[in-house]
Amino acid sequence: MAMVEAAAIQAAVAAQRGFAAGLFDRLRQDGLDEPGVTRDPYGAGEQRAHATVAAAAETLGLAIERDAGANLYMTQAGRDRAAKRVVIGSHLDSVPHGGNFDGAAGVVAGLVALGALNQLGVKPACDVTVMGIRAEESIWFQVSYIGSRGALGTLPDGALDVRRIDTGRTLADHIAECGGDPEALQAGRRFLNPRDLRAYLELHIEQAPSLVEAGKPVAICTGIPGNFRYPDARIEGSHDHVGLPRRFRRDAAMAGAAFAMAIDTLWQEHDARGIPMAATIGRFHTDPALHGLTIVPGAFHFSLDVRAYDEAVLAELDQAVDRIIGGIEQCRGVHFHRGAKARAAVGPVDPGIRTALTEGAAALGIPAIELGSPASHDAAAFAACGVPMGMIFVRNANGSHNPREAMTLDDFLAGTAVLSHWLAETVA
Amino acid sequence: MAMVEAAAIQAAVAAQRGFAAGLFDRLRQDGLDEPGVTRDPYGAGEQRAHATVAAAAETLGLAIERDAGANLYMTQAGRDRAAKRVVIGSHLDSVPHGGNFDGAAGVVAGLVALGALNQLGVKPACDVTVMGIRAEESIWFQVSYIGSRGALGTLPDGALDVRRIDTGRTLADHIAECGGDPEALQAGRRFLNPRDLRAYLELHIEQAPSLVEAGKPVAICTGIPGNFRYPDARIEGSHDHVGLPRRFRRDAAMAGAAFAMAIDTLWQEHDARGIPMAATIGRFHTDPALHGLTIVPGAFHFSLDVRAYDEAVLAELDQAVDRIIGGIEQCRGVHFHRGAKARAAVGPVDPGIRTALTEGAAALGIPAIELGSPASHDAAAFAACGVPMGMIFVRNANGSHNPREAMTLDDFLAGTAVLSHWLAETVA
Repeated sequence: MAMVEAAAIQAAVAAQRGFAAGLFDRLRQDGLDEPGVTRDPYGAGEQRAHATVAAAAETLGLAIERDAGANLYMTQAGRDRAAKRVVIGSHLDSVPHGGNFDGAAGVVAGLVALGALNQLGVKPACDVTVMGIRAEESIWFQVSYIGSRGALGTLPDGALDVRRIDTGRTLADHIAECGGDPEALQAGRRFLNPRDLRAYLELHIEQAPSLVEAGKPVAICTGIPGNFRYPDARIEGSHDHVGLPRRFRRDAAMAGAAFAMAIDTLWQEHDARGIPMAATIGRFHTDPALHGLTIVPGAFHFSLDVRAYDEAVLAELDQAVDRIIGGIEQCRGVHFHRGAKARAAVGPVDPGIRTALTEGAAALGIPAIELGSPASHDAAAFAACGVPMGMIFVRNANGSHNPREAMTLDDFLAGTAVLSHWLAETVA
Repeated sequence: MAMVEAAAIQAAVAAQRGFAAGLFDRLRQDGLDEPGVTRDPYGAGEQRAHATVAAAAETLGLAIERDAGANLYMTQAGRDRAAKRVVIGSHLDSVPHGGNFDGAAGVVAGLVALGALNQLGVKPACDVTVMGIRAEESIWFQVSYIGSRGALGTLPDGALDVRRIDTGRTLADHIAECGGDPEALQAGRRFLNPRDLRAYLELHIEQAPSLVEAGKPVAICTGIPGNFRYPDARIEGSHDHVGLPRRFRRDAAMAGAAFAMAIDTLWQEHDARGIPMAATIGRFHTDPALHGLTIVPGAFHFSLDVRAYDEAVLAELDQAVDRIIGGIEQCRGVHFHRGAKARAAVGPVDPGIRTALTEGAAALGIPAIELGSPASHDAAAFAACGVPMGMIFVRNANGSHNPREAMTLDDFLAGTAVLSHWLAETVA
């Protein structure tokens, strides 16, 4: 096919502005749960978002399918239905009281890109599928990439038995309730065979302020961090009276504080050496049923998420955490119960896609930087299966996972133009 | 009056063994709330304990009275009803899921001492009153010495409006429900005029393991610590995404950890310099409604209790806490909201009573040490009003404020013999 000119792509994407704004508005209404939006995975909030997106896709003439994990597939048929297809996806769930754009922006971008392609009169060479992915936010089930790994047949053992932290019901129950088929997932039946996929592309708001700081609307992803996690760790000490001398104490909260400070120091040292990583202790608390002003805490609970872009760095951090725990146990007379450990592999970006996206931004005159993803994304689950993967980040103020997320429609359309340019070059 | 011989006192106290054991058993049954006992102040648990103790006092022929704060007074009339009276007291409430002896042992000891005096045929020179004090455990209302300060007319302003942390109802409501008269307390009407009190004595289990370590049954108190407290402090940072680089974070939980470590270091330094103090961060937690595995905590909550035996040391610690908070605010971009601040004055022991108790233990052949009280006690509220005060601690394994408290009846009777010896010497 002939190349489509950059200016024509930009015009076709700009023409979708009203479609995108309307869809974002409907999604916000669907998920409203002040402050912010809540699209609880395999629950009412996510269900409404899936219905709204599917209805929008039908207005574009796309074919709708759903898999055993209740993921949503919206496909523009290609000239050769047997050719490897392109998937453009992101997730439609959110954290509790999150923002409207984290996840949803990538799905809307896929639909806008297909709308623009239509408007340009391009019938793609292969099928192009926009995927609305389930349950990416691991705060709920404390398992990463549930929807995408379910689709790819790579869900970890036992994942269907984990319970949503608010409802206490299993992932299998939640999936069944939303029209999925947990037994098919249990049997490992996959909807997407990685060999049949030409590429996986994802657009996402940036979740750190690097683009705000750089004053640019778009970033091309250089890699997605892997992580290891202890979602439910606890420290066992001894509940004692407020007057107990220090030498007798086995204070679980002080042990937790020592652990947090050691992790913070570890990160500071890595920052100083220029080795990118992040460590987050998101839950960090005494036991509300037992704690009090005049009781030395004998129990303490925490979660830990450690991430890096290099498997060797992750392995070294893993050992460092073990050393820190061992030292605190010895010095403070407490015991750490780490609980289950979860891992996600580092997600490498396909070099060809990365170059094409960077060159596309330049062709479109859109200022862009290259950036390691601060966050985890479903794209990593595709990369882990050998699918060539690329990601585009869009500038976003005030971080994500909170109601103050702020992406402008202009920036969104800039990122979507880069995506559309790549798509046109790849499938026209 | 003639001196009563030490051996006779010991025999008379030993004869009360069955009375004490039976009363402790009934109190344990009254308060059973596995694990341990709960005698919630101005609530059902404490009410049952008061009824049980009053019934036991009636079998000893004591006169029963109650005041506006619903404290219980059980009096053996003296030969001169107009003479200054002796009060022997302790509290009948407990922490949630606490032990049976913290507080109650002192009330039972008072009754045993009066029983022993009776058996010795001693009619005291002045009235001797055993006082069952309300609401000493500050975990519930987060105010110290409610019962004793109510009786003495020294409740702090606003105390009647504080709410019990579990019920959310005010102290005034709770007092009224238990037969008290919050309006009389509000008006500052006191039941006990310090000028009419000859002495206040209290026996209490030791709440640290110093007596276990020393291998002795009894300690004579040298002083009760004063304290300052922030019962409901919080740290305000920013809720952010798990991938946010360190330099952008305003992590409230990390700020909490830094605070706890600084307080711990302060204590270590005081220990090294031989200056007795204690610091406890009993509640230390992220917000359960907002925290999660993949969210940088933007809110953190804690309580702080700092205690020492010297007002100058307390003042210096107070300034140190301010310096620590200022440093963390500057370095971590967070803000500390300290909330209400509570104080309790250092409680000095009367030197004459202290000497008499120590000499009494020697006369009885009971091994005893001298010990600064690790904990706060109602005795400090009496000392603050100028009432000559003394305390006796009884050996207790496994600390207090937990169900594993372990005082033997032998040790209890040893401590009670020291109390009875002092009483006989003072009022016979």
